[in-house]
Amino acid sequence: MTQQETSATQPNPADLVGGLARAGRKAQTRLARLSGPEKAQALQLAAQGLRAAEAEILAANELDLAAARKAGLAEAMLDRLALDAGRIEAVASAVEAVAALPDPVGQKIDRTQRPNGLVLERVRVPIGLLGIIYESRPNVTADAAALCVRAGNAVLLRGGSEAVHSNRAIHAAMVGGLVKGGVPAEAVQLIPTQDRAAVGAMLAAAGLIDMIIPRGGKSLVARVQADARVPVLAHLDGICHTYIHQAADPEMARSVAHNAKLRRTGICGAMETLLLDATFPDSPALLGDLLDAGCELRGDPRAQAMDSRILPAAAEDWDTEYLEAILSVAVVDGLDDALAHIAAHSSGHTDVIVTQDEVAAEQFLAIVDSAIVMVNASSQFADGGEFGLGAEIGIATGRLHARGPVALEGLTTYKWLVRGTGQIRP
Amino acid sequence: MTQQETSATQPNPADLVGGLARAGRKAQTRLARLSGPEKAQALQLAAQGLRAAEAEILAANELDLAAARKAGLAEAMLDRLALDAGRIEAVASAVEAVAALPDPVGQKIDRTQRPNGLVLERVRVPIGLLGIIYESRPNVTADAAALCVRAGNAVLLRGGSEAVHSNRAIHAAMVGGLVKGGVPAEAVQLIPTQDRAAVGAMLAAAGLIDMIIPRGGKSLVARVQADARVPVLAHLDGICHTYIHQAADPEMARSVAHNAKLRRTGICGAMETLLLDATFPDSPALLGDLLDAGCELRGDPRAQAMDSRILPAAAEDWDTEYLEAILSVAVVDGLDDALAHIAAHSSGHTDVIVTQDEVAAEQFLAIVDSAIVMVNASSQFADGGEFGLGAEIGIATGRLHARGPVALEGLTTYKWLVRGTGQIRP
Repeated sequence: MTQQETSATQPNPADLVGGLARAGRKAQTRLARLSGPEKAQALQLAAQGLRAAEAEILAANELDLAAARKAGLAEAMLDRLALDAGRIEAVASAVEAVAALPDPVGQKIDRTQRPNGLVLERVRVPIGLLGIIYESRPNVTADAAALCVRAGNAVLLRGGSEAVHSNRAIHAAMVGGLVKGGVPAEAVQLIPTQDRAAVGAMLAAAGLIDMIIPRGGKSLVARVQADARVPVLAHLDGICHTYIHQAADPEMARSVAHNAKLRRTGICGAMETLLLDATFPDSPALLGDLLDAGCELRGDPRAQAMDSRILPAAAEDWDTEYLEAILSVAVVDGLDDALAHIAAHSSGHTDVIVTQDEVAAEQFLAIVDSAIVMVNASSQFADGGEFGLGAEIGIATGRLHARGPVALEGLTTYKWLVRGTGQIRP
Repeated sequence: MTQQETSATQPNPADLVGGLARAGRKAQTRLARLSGPEKAQALQLAAQGLRAAEAEILAANELDLAAARKAGLAEAMLDRLALDAGRIEAVASAVEAVAALPDPVGQKIDRTQRPNGLVLERVRVPIGLLGIIYESRPNVTADAAALCVRAGNAVLLRGGSEAVHSNRAIHAAMVGGLVKGGVPAEAVQLIPTQDRAAVGAMLAAAGLIDMIIPRGGKSLVARVQADARVPVLAHLDGICHTYIHQAADPEMARSVAHNAKLRRTGICGAMETLLLDATFPDSPALLGDLLDAGCELRGDPRAQAMDSRILPAAAEDWDTEYLEAILSVAVVDGLDDALAHIAAHSSGHTDVIVTQDEVAAEQFLAIVDSAIVMVNASSQFADGGEFGLGAEIGIATGRLHARGPVALEGLTTYKWLVRGTGQIRP
């Protein structure tokens, strides 16, 4: 084999990603000319493609599962990876649900007329080419592709090596449907190598990839945030606080705290730190309720004094996202003390106050500087679906472009349209 | 002098910028608690401070001008640097104009109520700490600081070394006024060293500086875009096209083209390439008009054939921002050909079609993927003031966060406020 042949069959990761990105950008300009109903129909065909390829997808998934079992992956990882007929149907239905969402492209943000007669409008347009880097769940291949296409964006998908066969089968089935609907195949591309250097090449592709969204564990997100030269939409941590104010309704406080921690402990909107006002009378009962439900509590000395089952909290507990049935508990002296704790330790995701005092509630809403600030509700509502956005690509805790649950609107940008009648600038 | 003393008096640039940034972030949390009227009043006091310090500012400016003359700076550079009583008054008035703009902080973007009763609102909040890196014009010190403070942001200012004394005097006068109005002094900080490594430290300060805005020439913007690990809001080039469609009104075409190129040639919204439809009958007269006005034309062979004074265009002319009385001219065969030229060569700033054909106009608006797309108007309107935004911090051609003229709204982000009555997630 000559050297030229080698480099042709095995391009280096930067060339590979560069070539895919250029093809994706070109495909995006064609995708951008499809109407909303055309994109919706293509996504419906993609969902049909997924259903029709059930056998191929399950066979591919079996290969991944066999390799994962051989590698000794934990049961929880195997469960994330595993597909069955029900899960494939759920993936297809989710694609149809995205198809049914209103098209964000072309939506008018505002319109003004200037004294000189110029009419200005801002309208939403696609961002361009997005990169999604994700881990073991193969459904992300379809979910992310559907959201990107709905908003007129091309996408480069880079899934985890555990799910490589499943991802390829899902991608092939989906693109087959999209192409029937007039979407160029290069609008949705799966990086064809599991070489980790391809991720580095994506992160370095400033000017070729417009935005990268990592979906996965903290180490993946941290690497992407540290290394990317491309803008990143992500959240690293969900260290969510619930502050039980002096004027909280005791029953509401118990119910909200229980739900915020224990409904599902593994999601980013789960409460990780409970702040109890020193003057809230019902704290021992609230803590007893959590302990009785099997939650491990790690408290400061005043919290520990309320129940002998409470373990001592170490300094790092206030900055830890447990994602399991463990909760840190601090007793604070009033609203300002709670705000100071949150300012020092919140990851900027979701923070909650429980109170019947409207003044305290409004102060909390005004001062807490997190993507989502709630009054009298479980932090587990921090979710695009619960917010009525239809579906979310993720939750962002950065400060620019989009914050909190990011759905179709966050996958668009805007342009200014100016309509004149020959105006020249004096 | 011991080593410790040396490092205490001359911290390395990363430590210096880190210390200033941390102080700025702390000040920002206090600034964020001021009301809109309080911030406005502080800016009015800053404007008064600028007027009161006229003598000090002029004396400082004289030092900069003397150094610049000694260094042999060009007349245009000296003019950008020079202040007089009238220019100081203009700077103070500009600060007052920003004070008079509506406060963007707290503005509601949208509000929805969910079936479960949760009420969701998105409200604008400050971004945090911004970095402004700029060149010779000392008025940017005041303009940028005023816009940042109006939107509740702290700012680190890094001006050019030519204007170091002027910038310090303007900064001192302004901060004196702001502090009287209750704004912490550290909300507006001027980097105290001209060491170029301080710029590098700002660009690397991810997590400490939330966004950097470069204001200056192309080499400054290019360096910032290439090196920054912090999000950047900027435009590198303004390669603006005007396409004269077959159905353009001849008189309007001549007037718009003349204004777009020659009103002011040095601004980013000035036309740099004229696209003439091969079937537009009045092209020779339009080109003759520009030539008669002293504009150098560089054309493709079909354009050259229209007037012997037209020079041949080289390939790089289609990608050149002249910023002077030079224009590249191409003859195109219809709308699609014009769109293809723009897709290949536009810098994504402002592109214009002149036509009486509404279908062609709407196609152009839909397909051209630039921050600003205009019909029947001079590209020189690409400006925050002309767009009714009050004042602009710059024009952005990136795709995320804010596009086109960026004013107060672009200096904010949003958070979600969720008001419940004890809802828990099923």
